[in-house]
Amino acid sequence: MKKWSLLFWVSPLSVFAQQKNVVQYVNPLIGTQRMGHTFPGATVPFGMVQLSPDTDTIPYEMNGKYNPDVYKYCAGYQYDDKTIVGFSHTHFSGTGHSDLGDFLIMPTTGTLQLNPGIATEPKSGFRSAYSHANEKAEAGYYKVQLDDDNITAELTATTRTGFHQYTFPKTNDAHIIFDLMHGIYNYDDKNVWTFIRVENDTLVTGYRQTNGWARTRTVYFAMSFSKPFKEYGCKDFSKKQVYRGFWRKFDQSKNFPDLAGKQLRMYFNFDTEAGEKIKLKLALSPVSTEGALLNLRTEIPHWDFEQTKAAAQAAWNTELSKIAIDAADAEKQNFYTALYHAFLGPTVFMDVDRKYKGLDQNIHTAANFTNYTTFSLWDTYRALHPFFNIIQPARNGDMISSMLAHYDQSVLQMLPIWSHYSNDNWCMSGYHSVSVIADAIIKGNKSFDAAHALDACIATASHKNYEGIGSYLDKGFIPDEKLGTSASTTLEYAYDDWSIAQAAQHLGRSGIYETFMKRSASYKNLYDATAGFMRARKEDGTFKNDFDPLSTHGQGFIEGNSWNYSFFVPQDPEGLITLMGGKKKFSAKLDTLFTMYLPDKYFAETEDITRDGIIGTYVHGNEPAHHVAYLYNFAGQPWKTQQRVRMILKNQYKPAPDGLGGNDDCGQMSAWYLFSTLGFYPVAPGSAQYQLGSPAINKAVIQLENGNTFTVEANNQSDKNVYVQKVLLNGKQLEQPVITHEDIMKGGTLTFFMTDKPKK
Amino acid sequence: MKKWSLLFWVSPLSVFAQQKNVVQYVNPLIGTQRMGHTFPGATVPFGMVQLSPDTDTIPYEMNGKYNPDVYKYCAGYQYDDKTIVGFSHTHFSGTGHSDLGDFLIMPTTGTLQLNPGIATEPKSGFRSAYSHANEKAEAGYYKVQLDDDNITAELTATTRTGFHQYTFPKTNDAHIIFDLMHGIYNYDDKNVWTFIRVENDTLVTGYRQTNGWARTRTVYFAMSFSKPFKEYGCKDFSKKQVYRGFWRKFDQSKNFPDLAGKQLRMYFNFDTEAGEKIKLKLALSPVSTEGALLNLRTEIPHWDFEQTKAAAQAAWNTELSKIAIDAADAEKQNFYTALYHAFLGPTVFMDVDRKYKGLDQNIHTAANFTNYTTFSLWDTYRALHPFFNIIQPARNGDMISSMLAHYDQSVLQMLPIWSHYSNDNWCMSGYHSVSVIADAIIKGNKSFDAAHALDACIATASHKNYEGIGSYLDKGFIPDEKLGTSASTTLEYAYDDWSIAQAAQHLGRSGIYETFMKRSASYKNLYDATAGFMRARKEDGTFKNDFDPLSTHGQGFIEGNSWNYSFFVPQDPEGLITLMGGKKKFSAKLDTLFTMYLPDKYFAETEDITRDGIIGTYVHGNEPAHHVAYLYNFAGQPWKTQQRVRMILKNQYKPAPDGLGGNDDCGQMSAWYLFSTLGFYPVAPGSAQYQLGSPAINKAVIQLENGNTFTVEANNQSDKNVYVQKVLLNGKQLEQPVITHEDIMKGGTLTFFMTDKPKK
Repeated sequence: MKKWSLLFWVSPLSVFAQQKNVVQYVNPLIGTQRMGHTFPGATVPFGMVQLSPDTDTIPYEMNGKYNPDVYKYCAGYQYDDKTIVGFSHTHFSGTGHSDLGDFLIMPTTGTLQLNPGIATEPKSGFRSAYSHANEKAEAGYYKVQLDDDNITAELTATTRTGFHQYTFPKTNDAHIIFDLMHGIYNYDDKNVWTFIRVENDTLVTGYRQTNGWARTRTVYFAMSFSKPFKEYGCKDFSKKQVYRGFWRKFDQSKNFPDLAGKQLRMYFNFDTEAGEKIKLKLALSPVSTEGALLNLRTEIPHWDFEQTKAAAQAAWNTELSKIAIDAADAEKQNFYTALYHAFLGPTVFMDVDRKYKGLDQNIHTAANFTNYTTFSLWDTYRALHPFFNIIQPARNGDMISSMLAHYDQSVLQMLPIWSHYSNDNWCMSGYHSVSVIADAIIKGNKSFDAAHALDACIATASHKNYEGIGSYLDKGFIPDEKLGTSASTTLEYAYDDWSIAQAAQHLGRSGIYETFMKRSASYKNLYDATAGFMRARKEDGTFKNDFDPLSTHGQGFIEGNSWNYSFFVPQDPEGLITLMGGKKKFSAKLDTLFTMYLPDKYFAETEDITRDGIIGTYVHGNEPAHHVAYLYNFAGQPWKTQQRVRMILKNQYKPAPDGLGGNDDCGQMSAWYLFSTLGFYPVAPGSAQYQLGSPAINKAVIQLENGNTFTVEANNQSDKNVYVQKVLLNGKQLEQPVITHEDIMKGGTLTFFMTDKPKK
Repeated sequence: MKKWSLLFWVSPLSVFAQQKNVVQYVNPLIGTQRMGHTFPGATVPFGMVQLSPDTDTIPYEMNGKYNPDVYKYCAGYQYDDKTIVGFSHTHFSGTGHSDLGDFLIMPTTGTLQLNPGIATEPKSGFRSAYSHANEKAEAGYYKVQLDDDNITAELTATTRTGFHQYTFPKTNDAHIIFDLMHGIYNYDDKNVWTFIRVENDTLVTGYRQTNGWARTRTVYFAMSFSKPFKEYGCKDFSKKQVYRGFWRKFDQSKNFPDLAGKQLRMYFNFDTEAGEKIKLKLALSPVSTEGALLNLRTEIPHWDFEQTKAAAQAAWNTELSKIAIDAADAEKQNFYTALYHAFLGPTVFMDVDRKYKGLDQNIHTAANFTNYTTFSLWDTYRALHPFFNIIQPARNGDMISSMLAHYDQSVLQMLPIWSHYSNDNWCMSGYHSVSVIADAIIKGNKSFDAAHALDACIATASHKNYEGIGSYLDKGFIPDEKLGTSASTTLEYAYDDWSIAQAAQHLGRSGIYETFMKRSASYKNLYDATAGFMRARKEDGTFKNDFDPLSTHGQGFIEGNSWNYSFFVPQDPEGLITLMGGKKKFSAKLDTLFTMYLPDKYFAETEDITRDGIIGTYVHGNEPAHHVAYLYNFAGQPWKTQQRVRMILKNQYKPAPDGLGGNDDCGQMSAWYLFSTLGFYPVAPGSAQYQLGSPAINKAVIQLENGNTFTVEANNQSDKNVYVQKVLLNGKQLEQPVITHEDIMKGGTLTFFMTDKPKK
């Protein structure tokens, strides 16, 4: 391999020549089985429309109680399911809670069915059986045979518009079902209002307003059919028919164009010839039906499905080609699918005329940036946004401008915690917007207002009424009595505060730097030297009783036990090492983390991951320990970082539907993979340093937005040769396993020489 | 009297000098008792904000069933009630169905109460006892003493902003309740969504979205306090607490600024000194909170309550002074209150930047007209819009432009039937927009697009799927099997069609003229010569069985029996007279109508009126017979018109809370009074002719927008001298009891000579 690769890698240009079509390596089905929570449907990079099949309609609540089965359907699709309910236009990728699933479309024939039916009897409703043998998922394209009625469904998309193509058999009873009740994490009262206008015999507009994870959310649509429907109708499935007033004058069930209610499903009827394609385009808008129509007409002013598909795949190829790699096909599948998953979000959230609905529910214009939403920041601050700082800095700057617009519109004067569709859903802990902002500031991203951004960070971190911040400032930790996640949240605040300090230092705000550096040392307040772990503390200063470092429940941590969280001091590994008794004890403790078998009773407590998502007691399927494998570098044992990283890459990422060990979490898991595969990782976003690990490809050429090229070469790497013998940066040997952001940005070559023996 | 009046009426100028303050004659309490359904609160002419006390909170439905008691509260206020629940910002004036009542404010002291309590025990909730002795209602100003907590409430308004002034006793427990659940014709699911932001300690913004008479309605507000509140809170009264997600992190009950839900009530707490005034301004917007804030800051950029009150009353004086009259004070009260009621609607429906939400739910800009809503057209086409054609032609033109914008945005391609707040509620029958439009066209109102308007009329009248239009076109009548109101609707369509024909003729569209003239003769199809009445007909052409001309139920008529509706051929009284066997028989029949006592069992069937609203069997409290008293003119017995009109004026309009015999119906009852008092009436809007009756004032001077003045003099008129001896127009005796619109518009004097003897 080595010889061939040396031969092949004459210049980066030939890599690009070879990899003209990197889209071929993307397999959107990766992660759709078990806990990955990815979706297989069609979208463009960072697209507002993420048009994908939904395989079930499990409600979030049954009789007012949480229904745990809903969790499988965070992305609407589960690979093991045998039926498809329809194709909806909005999805999250890899989340562990959910929303969306707007505007489900399903083609059927024969007797009209307006209920989805049940999975075990697909003919009981409009859902259909399908098989993976007749399913094709590509970046920007999805195709499936719907077996019940012998219909071929094909999907593609632009940023704001889904393009459907359905090939029907010959029939006088072809239907397109338009389900406005359907949603992901649906429950009885989630649909607040629905408004529909059948503008003419090929155009329908309207909106759906929901009260879900996003509390106050309205999505507008405009839907255009390639062929006039011969008739149409609507049924209101509300349990209670509310006041209808003088609308009772109308028969609203059939061919009535002016519709509104809470639980509506529509159908559109057609006659079809054998093999006839009925196409439809459905555009979204966060602003208005007028905006949706403008998006539709601007983005796809034709009916050429193949043209839109080709454009979507070309868009993907452009984005994915920013990193050309030399690796085996299976690894290319892993790599380009991870890159694909990393580029699914945050999602564009404005119309083509730059208008969007803000947090204040007013209409704003994003004059000088692209407005984004879907900020799963507890996850993505760790590696995804740092990855964007290398490969998508312009977009990352716009994402920060979007976060600042959110802040400017926030009546709470807070940066987003977890935001989507003009809402904060307040999911998870910390205020990690500040990390994303600080990382971009210290890495020299000039495309947003850094001074304003720092002020926003300070304001957010000073919000005493938010999740224990008041106590944290008073006592240096959040008492257990105040917050169930007092320990992990304290640790996260300490890191976040350090990142604010770094940004302040960069911008010359020395007072702020000092204040927040002091705050960032708060992690020390949780360290129990006797136990050797981070522990929750009580109001009176004593540690919380009944400490169990293996348990994730009732110990003051979220999505992790003390074993994992005790290493959560990315901002000060040296300080942590000192606390834990020096490098030797520290690395021994890390060894135990990676090797100690987690008893089953504790596994049962973990969330969002499969058993494979755990290595020893190290939980990779959740994020808090994502930086931990790189901490060996700080303890003087980089070969262990190298070995652990390769082990994680091998165990946790496979090019198969069940290939992800935990939720992809809006690209964070994929971003970890991408960094680690390239051989370096941002242990503490807000620092310009990357810790070196063990590159898992032979060569990668990264095209930077500034025109430079950064190349990673890994000579002699293989599954066996995971250890680094030496590393050259532009031909000069590195003394430490560290490179800086500047090293990357100015272009150059990082050359690893790999071996099968640890270099101790 | 005559001599004095001759002396006094030297010139119109002296009239104006005398009547500088005509506002003093307005008594907004007229009609607030029994069936008038007017409201006593503060508003400016055609104001969006109509800020008024609500005296009860009867729900529209109880356990899913209509609650007839709600009907009393169409305007929120009933004079006989002993308590006030609070002051809300939107009301209809005089309707017989309802909606609105947005954003109720109530000041209290002592223990915080967030429930309104019950009327018999006002201290059981935030409502308060009050007495009329301590109540003052003026045009643009309302004041009341709230007895429970000794608070004086004062209200005034601009077009879009309500201004409240509350004088508190000394207390540390002053509250201002802000009830976003409250509404008129409320029911469990009416509140669809509510969104609130406490922007700072004096400013609150948000919106309330309802599903009521207006199916899809959102009203935005911005509310500003003159004094910072010391604390505030919110309670969600939803029966079922829906999914709250991670918002559970927050204590939203107190001092939390980011609120949303379905059933919210807020409170704001203050310390007050004795006699301290807390003021608040609440502006509405149909567009956004941004729009509401713009309205608030533009319209009232100060805290001077007296200044706004003075401006509101000056605005009323300007509008009301357009007609100066010589009459006794009691009659002036009737007259100027009628004029006041006539100028309460349609209401302005756009922000100060001219933006409004259209029927398509998109935001539009009314570039070259003022956009209006609240079109109770089945009522107001008869006399109110014709009255506007004389006294408010510019506004009437803008109202028509608003109706055309509605048409342009209507997916049903229909002009409004009964529209308010970007919705049609489809109330009542006919398509009387066309009458309003035709009347304005033939009267030379050039301020809207007449050609487009005629097209809109034709499209509306051609809508075969709407309320029997298809059958009406096929058969010349709507069969009873198709529609419960087949007979009255057929009669109304026939009239409306005639009005379209008149407009078409005026615009030179002779084909349209002929088509619609033919349609307008359809009334003949319902005349049963044997019975001598209009009757519903069946599909097979035979008359519906069990005919009872006195019954208003099950006979094919709405808000009227056959006795009243049989005269509903305003477009062709001559034709009707012929049908009914000539002038003698016709006038005898009219005599019977006015004199025959309606048996109690039939009265029990009538809607919207009190027993006093009926004269003989003639129902004045409902509209269908409003033109009937003038039909004697066509039968050669004008003295009977004169006598009947004066009798109706005397019986049906009194300057007292119970002074109106039926719903004022958005000014239609008042407009009938105004025309009739001035001595002429538009029997068939769409014709330029007015039938003369019997003027009930000594003199009136009408200032026209074109700068001309039209004067009506009634020499020797009195309660006894109701008969017209002769009439001079500009000194020339009239041969017929008719004047034209042109006669009025070019200015001049119409001089009646009155006597106590009919001139047969």
